[in-house]
Amino acid sequence: MALFDFSPLLPAGLPAPAARWNGLAKYSFVGGNNDPDGVPVEDFRAAADAVLVREGRGLATYGLGHGPQGYRPLRAFLAEKLRRDAAISCSADDIMMVSGSLQALDLINQALLARGDTVIVERDNYQGTLTRLARLGVEAVGIPLDQHGMRMDALAAALAGLKARSIRPKYIYTIPTVQNPTGTVMPESRRLELLRLSEQHGVPIFEDDCYADLTWDGQRPRAIHALAEHGSVIHIGSFSKSVAPALRVGFVVAPWQLMSIMLALKTDAGSGALEQMLLAEYCTAHFDSHVPELVRGLRAKLETLMDALNAEFGTAAEFAAPHGGIFLWVKLPDQVDAMRLAQAALKAGVAINPGPEWSTDPVHAGSRLRLCFASPSHQEIRDGVAILAEVCRQEFGVPIRSANMDKTRL
Amino acid sequence: MALFDFSPLLPAGLPAPAARWNGLAKYSFVGGNNDPDGVPVEDFRAAADAVLVREGRGLATYGLGHGPQGYRPLRAFLAEKLRRDAAISCSADDIMMVSGSLQALDLINQALLARGDTVIVERDNYQGTLTRLARLGVEAVGIPLDQHGMRMDALAAALAGLKARSIRPKYIYTIPTVQNPTGTVMPESRRLELLRLSEQHGVPIFEDDCYADLTWDGQRPRAIHALAEHGSVIHIGSFSKSVAPALRVGFVVAPWQLMSIMLALKTDAGSGALEQMLLAEYCTAHFDSHVPELVRGLRAKLETLMDALNAEFGTAAEFAAPHGGIFLWVKLPDQVDAMRLAQAALKAGVAINPGPEWSTDPVHAGSRLRLCFASPSHQEIRDGVAILAEVCRQEFGVPIRSANMDKTRL
Repeated sequence: MALFDFSPLLPAGLPAPAARWNGLAKYSFVGGNNDPDGVPVEDFRAAADAVLVREGRGLATYGLGHGPQGYRPLRAFLAEKLRRDAAISCSADDIMMVSGSLQALDLINQALLARGDTVIVERDNYQGTLTRLARLGVEAVGIPLDQHGMRMDALAAALAGLKARSIRPKYIYTIPTVQNPTGTVMPESRRLELLRLSEQHGVPIFEDDCYADLTWDGQRPRAIHALAEHGSVIHIGSFSKSVAPALRVGFVVAPWQLMSIMLALKTDAGSGALEQMLLAEYCTAHFDSHVPELVRGLRAKLETLMDALNAEFGTAAEFAAPHGGIFLWVKLPDQVDAMRLAQAALKAGVAINPGPEWSTDPVHAGSRLRLCFASPSHQEIRDGVAILAEVCRQEFGVPIRSANMDKTRL
Repeated sequence: MALFDFSPLLPAGLPAPAARWNGLAKYSFVGGNNDPDGVPVEDFRAAADAVLVREGRGLATYGLGHGPQGYRPLRAFLAEKLRRDAAISCSADDIMMVSGSLQALDLINQALLARGDTVIVERDNYQGTLTRLARLGVEAVGIPLDQHGMRMDALAAALAGLKARSIRPKYIYTIPTVQNPTGTVMPESRRLELLRLSEQHGVPIFEDDCYADLTWDGQRPRAIHALAEHGSVIHIGSFSKSVAPALRVGFVVAPWQLMSIMLALKTDAGSGALEQMLLAEYCTAHFDSHVPELVRGLRAKLETLMDALNAEFGTAAEFAAPHGGIFLWVKLPDQVDAMRLAQAALKAGVAINPGPEWSTDPVHAGSRLRLCFASPSHQEIRDGVAILAEVCRQEFGVPIRSANMDKTRL
């Protein structure tokens, strides 16, 4: 007898089924993975042991009995960190722990969005944000960026145009500090202009600060949340980029009017307690010394990546050095179809993010790539870029062979 | 200037906002919390240390690079455990780790349900299942239970009635092994009858086995999944009840046709890796000895609870001793309004689950309570039941004062 067929039971609108997992590409420039050498294993061991001795019995109670906003010592650490680093004034009661900042995206979207709504986003953007909005049937209006992040002239025009059509966007989503994928940092003056436009149009700001710890010099402008005077900013962050992505711990700072709805929507009986306990114990003692060390390693890998791109692609690869983070946004010549390049490169063992998946404007991003440099080794970066250049040459005739070709590849 | 007002931006259909967390009740008989003395802290310390030394660097990669189905050693442990305990034949490739069995509920519902659909459930049921279905706009047809779980005569009649109205339910949801809240265990003969009805009507079975490790004698019938020959059963489970609820780790065993959709819907970048690592390391060495010890402690608390109910309520409290688990389903006299009792008891420091929140039939469950006994101490159980009886007497005149009153309460 045949297997039970579920297909007549499936509702409309499901995403395409996943393929079987085939492992990571040999040269992986995708995903927010980090440097294995950057995981502070010894300090994690000590932190796990200390917190289990002290509070392990609490694991018998959902959320350790600290309530649906999450493990209180971690929220206390964050309140202090956000004050010091981002000038955000908040207490542990204003913070809600979530299972990675992706759950924050989901909860905020559930709390604010309905099918047919409109939101404003940066044109080149995090794929996970764009795919979520598409699945929800929400229109994402993309605002172009320059070297200082989202362009305020374009935002003002978009808001005015929507207003003329009687459309009030539900939020303005921005990654102002190390923007994904452009790596730009929005200066404080522009943040203030963004707030002015937000208030003028009654549109809240959704500030995604998940890369903000990773600026090269450790400096960052004050968070938009810190500059807002009327509680119109929802701020989210994560430990994925600054500590370890496989730990699924993010957070939200939001006005209670909104957080109380998000808490009602968060029906998961709490985010993982052990990961919150480990992070609180570890970060309280070591976060301040860990991050600069991690960032030094990331910056060295970025240099290797940019050197490899210059050597292999020459002038065919254009990019601006980001101010921090784990990715580089690269423009190739117009004849390069990034979607096709990504497919061909993957066959050769090199995984890249094609621009059209990271932008509201697939034409603008048609020849662009996002290359993540944190996870591969320096040698893998060099080898992977060499293979990518060779694939690109075979598929699109660029880069042409030239004197700046990396001889180590031969 | 006033605070930003989000209310004009909120979509229809949101749940009521959460109230501020006020801590657990002094005498808490709610929630699936477990016994703090049952957390194997020393073995957790050893397991955390061993797995961090060996694989801690992997935390730099989402999901440790084990793919979206989760940490492979934990799936391997589960495949072997499910074979041995539940006679389920599956491999690690058939198992998907999730963030607690609640995420399994959400993913299965997202994969199968649309507004207006119908599903079949046990009449007295897990509140989280019923509230999820209500929010999705799905009709839950409740089937009465007897001492052997869901009644097959009632199920057959319900299926026939729905068929006559041309309604094909999307699934039959059952907790066959230590049913929540009745504590019943469905015998194998009835499982086979359930499968026969499922196949006759082309309705898959959704088997929630999250309490199945906690039978008093360690014995359990084969899982329905194990008895099915055509892949019509979705099986879920959890470590929350057998190890620790604050660790958010559950799992799904499902045919690939469905699992591939659930994986596409699981856009959380993986469930927490450290909790999966700890559990794999711990369970492989200790699960078999841990569970019987945990269960002995639970059974002793059940005895305390039943003794306290007999002493305080006398014949006013009716219940059948469950075959395992962490809760007791209690019937009080008809004049007791369980919703009102729960409110009054909470003011006196005693939290209970009122029956109407745990049933598709609020009238049937109007005088019923679910009392969880795993978390409070023996003394707290005795004191809490005494207070509950006193509140019930004040509110409803039952239990009447009688010779079996517990003098220690005075």
